[in-house]
Amino acid sequence: MKIADRIEATMTAAIAQGQGGMAPPKLAAALNYAVTPGGARIRPTILMSVAMACGDDRPALTNAAATALELVHCASLVHDDLPCFDDADLRRGKPALHRAFSEPLAVLAGDSLIIMGFHVLARAAGDAPARAITLLDILGTRTGMPFGICAGQGWESESQIDLSAYHQAKTGALFIAATQMGAVAAGQEPEPWAELGARIGEAFQVADDLRDALCDDATLGKPAGQDDLHGRPNAVAVYGVQGAVKRFDDILGGAISSIPACPGEAALAQMVRAYADKLVPAGARDRRTVPGE
Amino acid sequence: MKIADRIEATMTAAIAQGQGGMAPPKLAAALNYAVTPGGARIRPTILMSVAMACGDDRPALTNAAATALELVHCASLVHDDLPCFDDADLRRGKPALHRAFSEPLAVLAGDSLIIMGFHVLARAAGDAPARAITLLDILGTRTGMPFGICAGQGWESESQIDLSAYHQAKTGALFIAATQMGAVAAGQEPEPWAELGARIGEAFQVADDLRDALCDDATLGKPAGQDDLHGRPNAVAVYGVQGAVKRFDDILGGAISSIPACPGEAALAQMVRAYADKLVPAGARDRRTVPGE
Repeated sequence: MKIADRIEATMTAAIAQGQGGMAPPKLAAALNYAVTPGGARIRPTILMSVAMACGDDRPALTNAAATALELVHCASLVHDDLPCFDDADLRRGKPALHRAFSEPLAVLAGDSLIIMGFHVLARAAGDAPARAITLLDILGTRTGMPFGICAGQGWESESQIDLSAYHQAKTGALFIAATQMGAVAAGQEPEPWAELGARIGEAFQVADDLRDALCDDATLGKPAGQDDLHGRPNAVAVYGVQGAVKRFDDILGGAISSIPACPGEAALAQMVRAYADKLVPAGARDRRTVPGE
Repeated sequence: MKIADRIEATMTAAIAQGQGGMAPPKLAAALNYAVTPGGARIRPTILMSVAMACGDDRPALTNAAATALELVHCASLVHDDLPCFDDADLRRGKPALHRAFSEPLAVLAGDSLIIMGFHVLARAAGDAPARAITLLDILGTRTGMPFGICAGQGWESESQIDLSAYHQAKTGALFIAATQMGAVAAGQEPEPWAELGARIGEAFQVADDLRDALCDDATLGKPAGQDDLHGRPNAVAVYGVQGAVKRFDDILGGAISSIPACPGEAALAQMVRAYADKLVPAGARDRRTVPGE
């Protein structure tokens, strides 16, 4: 089965389980709304690619790990869109969950998806409980306080931001979780895989800055030009478009050379390169300026 | 060490861990604010009492289980108090977290505490990963969708409420988690312990209705008379004060007789009785009417 199909199949099964029993109907519908359409599913794709490069000897655990990570990521998008944060109208090209349902249901859908992420992993432990525990530990570290995406979002409430801690927690954390969880699901130690995740996270941040500067709202599925509008520090402002593209390429090179020795090393490097091509908008390599400059 | 001291020690250690590293200062402070003062810590107390009745052969795992349950409970209080739900000014006699900090920090503190609950358990697995996995599974079931407190709160967004599903999920779920997790932490099967938790949950609901009808704001630490004000179904409206007290006593009797055979069965029954005395306000057994009747 292709990676994308494995992810969707396990995501669908997890959501269906959350909608079972005597579930309140609106919250049940909100769970599905929050995770579809799936967008690139970049984090679970990286997780599965690493697991496959390491032999993927327990595919059900890999599936659960990928789904767990994506569920918590989706939860973070729902909560980030709330009126008290970004007050976003759109997400992935459709109304944000709190607009389509309500604010209470958006809070609860996020809470439920966070819990579901951990629960999916616990249920998939099978005869490898120690491996599942390590996966749960990594998921907790990279999503909660003090190192996870909650910490990253928490920095936005501070008047003085530690930029490195902010970016590492807000964007980097889930990519480190992706590479480490992929390795652990396949029986490897997590530590050697942290650098690959961190570098992919950095590259993703630069690519995000490029897309925000170069794409329109429809292409992004959310309002473009937000970094410039809010004066947020971003790679395009610092390096210009071509400089940011070069920085992206440099980080990617570092990411690929950090891949630990494993049976599928070459295929994994190929996957990282292919993903990189998708991340940077086609126009970026030909243009020297952002629109309006 | 006394149960209350064990709970506070493990709670304090968990929060300190969440505040470590490069944590954003305000969110770090909000985590501590959300869990102190602790109130009765009734759920972790029940959990520990059951574990001790079953031998408590892995006290560190019991401590983690009790803390995990209380952390997610505290998270639910923070989110329930948000403007889009109860819009509460007070909680446990001090300003609700979103009033003392901000709404974004209240959302994030809740998210972080949920994650911390699961993370604490994963970190405490030690050489008993299978037992920890079962604890995580129960915690997921009783907090998320479709059977947990998220589902319970989700029912409040429905125009037609399934009252039994609502009460079971909103109040009963964490008490079932308490008895089952206490048993599992001490190496027992969870199923025989579900009834005790469910009955304690029912009794707690009736006691809550009595307190809401009979106590003033200062005693409750939150606005009193809310059930009456919002026309919520409650035991005092259905049975009257003395009828509700009798119903409370009946449920408690059933709870005690449901306790599975275990080394500390008698002590556990004694604990349930002692707790029951604390739950029903002293005046309730002498009064025939609610204030204003």
